[in-house]
Amino acid sequence: MNHTDTPSLHAASAPLDEDSPWPPPQQRAQQREAKRQAVLSAAAQLFNERGFHATSLDDIAARLGVSKPTLYYYVKNKEEILLGCVRQGLQLMLDGIEDSRCGGGSALDQLTTCMQVYARIVTQDFGMCLIRVGDEQVSADNRGELRRIKAAIDHEFRRLVTQGVEEGSLAPCDPKMTAFVIGGALSWIGRWYQPGGEYTPEQIASQCLQTLLGGVLRRDPPASSH
Amino acid sequence: MNHTDTPSLHAASAPLDEDSPWPPPQQRAQQREAKRQAVLSAAAQLFNERGFHATSLDDIAARLGVSKPTLYYYVKNKEEILLGCVRQGLQLMLDGIEDSRCGGGSALDQLTTCMQVYARIVTQDFGMCLIRVGDEQVSADNRGELRRIKAAIDHEFRRLVTQGVEEGSLAPCDPKMTAFVIGGALSWIGRWYQPGGEYTPEQIASQCLQTLLGGVLRRDPPASSH
Repeated sequence: MNHTDTPSLHAASAPLDEDSPWPPPQQRAQQREAKRQAVLSAAAQLFNERGFHATSLDDIAARLGVSKPTLYYYVKNKEEILLGCVRQGLQLMLDGIEDSRCGGGSALDQLTTCMQVYARIVTQDFGMCLIRVGDEQVSADNRGELRRIKAAIDHEFRRLVTQGVEEGSLAPCDPKMTAFVIGGALSWIGRWYQPGGEYTPEQIASQCLQTLLGGVLRRDPPASSH
Repeated sequence: MNHTDTPSLHAASAPLDEDSPWPPPQQRAQQREAKRQAVLSAAAQLFNERGFHATSLDDIAARLGVSKPTLYYYVKNKEEILLGCVRQGLQLMLDGIEDSRCGGGSALDQLTTCMQVYARIVTQDFGMCLIRVGDEQVSADNRGELRRIKAAIDHEFRRLVTQGVEEGSLAPCDPKMTAFVIGGALSWIGRWYQPGGEYTPEQIASQCLQTLLGGVLRRDPPASSH
């Protein structure tokens, strides 16, 4: 019985003792990555609950039921953990935007999908961390990287708004400012959303999209109720 | 020549030597308050630029050209400074909301004024500080106070949306969620606004209000351009 799905790995390395208490290398790498992910997830939850500075490595270790020295096997320090969390939040957004682009359709279709993706991700641990922990918490070197990725996401929204105006589905507007308004309203969800609260992430996304796309003002003439 | 506009103060206290190098008590109190305000303003700017944790009392003193011990004459510690900044940001909003209520008009008029007030304040030092520094930076006791005031502001928006729907100017909606979307998009201005940047606060407020009130979708049927 094999410990791995990739027989070629075995062929390339020394024969393994099937009774060895150590798993084969590929499985060890997978386990290590799974554990690093668990560290990042626990950290993101704590950062979101208490703030970055109020969370210690001891808190993260305690939530995982391990010792602090164990954490150092997977991460160097708290800033590296935060960067890992924020990078994953950003990557989820980039992936979602890429999927919506591949899905095709009108600019309005793609913009709607991007807004749904964005609204969903900011209610999840890594996306919420991206919103709640400001860029100024990371060192200047890493801040540049985060801002570049955020700018890329913002530009994608701006591009879709511009195309939407061109295709006639969106009202003529300043695409940069409109993208800021959309991104702002959706980002803010990550600040006020409470998991298990009154609204599900799906309800929030649906209502926010409706308000942002349709606006607040009544479209048909008001009924004469008096 | 009097050092103060309130002669009654002099009548109640011992006669002052007009050549005294110490100003009379009321003037001293005014000077003290002006200096405390200068400490809060400098601190708000630094918190907004660098983040709360990255700003030291030494930084604040340096920006004011005084020594750190001098600061302790006006404030107890960094948390007290942050609370002072955030309280002023919140008070500016409450005052603006109160003014718009006194101004009267339809619910839509009042909502529009409140949105303008909110958008303007988050581009100013104390309002920006309110947005950029999360509640989790202050101790649990004070956090409760801040959240109560924020909830009061949120409820005012919710009340105006509800009344706007009742008067027929706003589309039927979930007032709570709509208030979150409005407040979120306007709050986010405080995260991305750069003083002296491409847009003035007035331009930003005007465009954001237009997008939020009118929505993103085109209202008239798209022109057949092809």
